Amino acid sequence: MKAEYINPFVRSVVNAFSTMIGCEVKRGQLSLGRPGNRLHEVSGVIGLSGTAAGTVVLSLSREVALKVAAALLLVEPEEMNSEVIDAVGELTNIVAGAAKGELDQFQLSISLPTVVMGRDHQMRFPSNVTPICVPFETPWGPLSLEVGLAPRPAAVPAEVG
Amino acid sequence: MKAEYINPFVRSVVNAFSTMIGCEVKRGQLSLGRPGNRLHEVSGVIGLSGTAAGTVVLSLSREVALKVAAALLLVEPEEMNSEVIDAVGELTNIVAGAAKGELDQFQLSISLPTVVMGRDHQMRFPSNVTPICVPFETPWGPLSLEVGLAPRPAAVPAEVG
Repeated sequence: MKAEYINPFVRSVVNAFSTMIGCEVKRGQLSLGRPGNRLHEVSGVIGLSGTAAGTVVLSLSREVALKVAAALLLVEPEEMNSEVIDAVGELTNIVAGAAKGELDQFQLSISLPTVVMGRDHQMRFPSNVTPICVPFETPWGPLSLEVGLAPRPAAVPAEVG
Repeated sequence: MKAEYINPFVRSVVNAFSTMIGCEVKRGQLSLGRPGNRLHEVSGVIGLSGTAAGTVVLSLSREVALKVAAALLLVEPEEMNSEVIDAVGELTNIVAGAAKGELDQFQLSISLPTVVMGRDHQMRFPSNVTPICVPFETPWGPLSLEVGLAPRPAAVPAEVG
């Protein structure tokens, strides 16, 4: 995956927090995804498909997930209820949706978000795809973005004829 | 989600095990997804998008994941290495890919598979989508299929004008 493809997703995360959640997030150094990276406790996952296929994972600590839900829903959830799950799914949806508009060469559309929970969950991409990971610091704790995007072999246009 | 939409995915699971892995799987009773359902230890996840948006989750016990990898790769992995991850991702890809052909009214394309691991992971759909779950028994243990599919509001054609 080309490093430049991560930039629209990074901008989306920064913009979503700034405009919808009302806080600044500080971006850390990007790295190539290593197998076995542990994620934070709650991860929103959404698929991308078009002339490339991809997946976006937005992983939040429990505290960040609760604060995101509080900001989006104007309530103060104290536990990981369905409103918090929906808020994390919606944030993932917003991040992927805004980024796909900047990657129009791939004509991407996005799937339904799902939210994975579990203290020790890991998420792996196929071994022929190296995702790019970007950590962020929010006022309430850590957040990470992981994106893998691979051109679809069938998408190569047949020029012959 | 209409119950009939699950059938192509069920057929895909049965066919993939029968033709590629060389064993019969026994389908259990389908149920509507309940929040908080715990999954097996390894889950392949893939997004669907077109005029509907969806996600397919194929969750396997560790033993089933190892046997699937052994059958697909003709090796006998003893631990959850990257080959096993790839085999679970590929099985999820095959199941979703075969099913989308039978749901051509949605013009679905599939995203990149990812594989979630963790003994206690849960996976949740947005609360406005009720996924359908189907358990299967394989000769090596349990497997479950969970599919959520929602029509995309933007896909309603504007007839005016």
